[in-house]
Amino acid sequence: MEVELKENERIDDLQLKGLKLIQDVDGFCFGVDAVLLANFAKIKKGTTVVDLGTGTGIIPTLIAGKSEAKKIYGVEIQDEVYEMATRSVKLNDLEDRVEIVHGDIKEIYNTIGKGFASVVTSNPPYMHDAGIKNPNDKKAISRHEIKCNLEDILKTASQLLVSRGKFYMIHRPTRLIDILTLGRQYKLEAKVIRFVHPRPDKAPNLILVEYAKDGRPDLKILDPLYVYGSDSDYSDEIKAMYKNEDLS
Amino acid sequence: MEVELKENERIDDLQLKGLKLIQDVDGFCFGVDAVLLANFAKIKKGTTVVDLGTGTGIIPTLIAGKSEAKKIYGVEIQDEVYEMATRSVKLNDLEDRVEIVHGDIKEIYNTIGKGFASVVTSNPPYMHDAGIKNPNDKKAISRHEIKCNLEDILKTASQLLVSRGKFYMIHRPTRLIDILTLGRQYKLEAKVIRFVHPRPDKAPNLILVEYAKDGRPDLKILDPLYVYGSDSDYSDEIKAMYKNEDLS
Repeated sequence: MEVELKENERIDDLQLKGLKLIQDVDGFCFGVDAVLLANFAKIKKGTTVVDLGTGTGIIPTLIAGKSEAKKIYGVEIQDEVYEMATRSVKLNDLEDRVEIVHGDIKEIYNTIGKGFASVVTSNPPYMHDAGIKNPNDKKAISRHEIKCNLEDILKTASQLLVSRGKFYMIHRPTRLIDILTLGRQYKLEAKVIRFVHPRPDKAPNLILVEYAKDGRPDLKILDPLYVYGSDSDYSDEIKAMYKNEDLS
Repeated sequence: MEVELKENERIDDLQLKGLKLIQDVDGFCFGVDAVLLANFAKIKKGTTVVDLGTGTGIIPTLIAGKSEAKKIYGVEIQDEVYEMATRSVKLNDLEDRVEIVHGDIKEIYNTIGKGFASVVTSNPPYMHDAGIKNPNDKKAISRHEIKCNLEDILKTASQLLVSRGKFYMIHRPTRLIDILTLGRQYKLEAKVIRFVHPRPDKAPNLILVEYAKDGRPDLKILDPLYVYGSDSDYSDEIKAMYKNEDLS
């Protein structure tokens, strides 16, 4: 499928089953976070997935390529970003499995329903919205809690999930207490945590969390994930993710 | 000071300013956990410290040797263990600074008071008390939540501390959610966490936590602490602790 590109847009090859992604070179391009999250999420055959704050659509696209999910929704609030992600879906001929939905996650159950998803994923804005100079800036909306905060994300994930459904999120370790306590508040029990460290001798700067809706308390912390090895090269684990070797 | 030794007791040299410790060779001897906690705790000059569930008295003894704490209480519920720890204090001529108190931590404020300690420390029993065959066994009481559980420890630490006082605890990462949420319930905000991994490629099996009473939310996760290096030898950081090199 051919699609039109706007000025400042480019097409990136995801190196996965020929999948491609349109990105805005002036906006927020996907990073290692999205790749980490798509690899962390366990998606069974026939699953219905919702990705909250999907941006370019990178996570639904990777999940479509890596799994046999039946249907993947990506929810995006920003007009232009939503429209660009929709063109990426067309570009990849994924319209039967991936649907980008335009809307605010806080009210998205009005559009797609409640209690139906087996899996929800999110790579939400990490930063508090204090001191944002331009709240309409696309990069700022992707990075700062302008349109939604962590509590909105957890509340929405819980609304959309079936009981025992899984919510996979990547966030900052500085928010660990909120990640765990707000999760419990919305019946999302953290079951698996993996800390992501830039290097083995550095503090973690990202955290991957698997929650189970209505799950019983039983937390497992996995071995650390190091992004870089001892030299300036990616670690073997990250290289394998980019080569899409360790896929389910 | 010479003290009497019972059968099955031995005296260990702590390799720190000539300090020694009486241990019961059939009971629970102190391990790396106590050394990690004593090194993690920041003790300023003139501080009053309380160690909850002090066992052999290893933590008050190490803190006495490493810091200029004014007074260190060690609370121990078991008769024989209390009595043995008291003899270690005499052995080290530390009676003016270290006092082992016999009692149940849940009611210890009746004996030593409330809201007076700048620092509380604890290396509590880690394991749930399910399925304990001999609840009078000294090792079992040190390891399982027979006499007190995590909530009792946090509640007591909060009772004893002054506002802004610090509580230092070592526990299991599997209890992370309780560690953080029960902390908040008792006005102990986790401020610093350090995960302890057996090796760099292994999941953490211990967690060091610094709480501040009435502290505001602001969590820092430190770089990982590895007990062993890539070979079977202790890591340089652990070796330095045992050599008492990195002391405040």
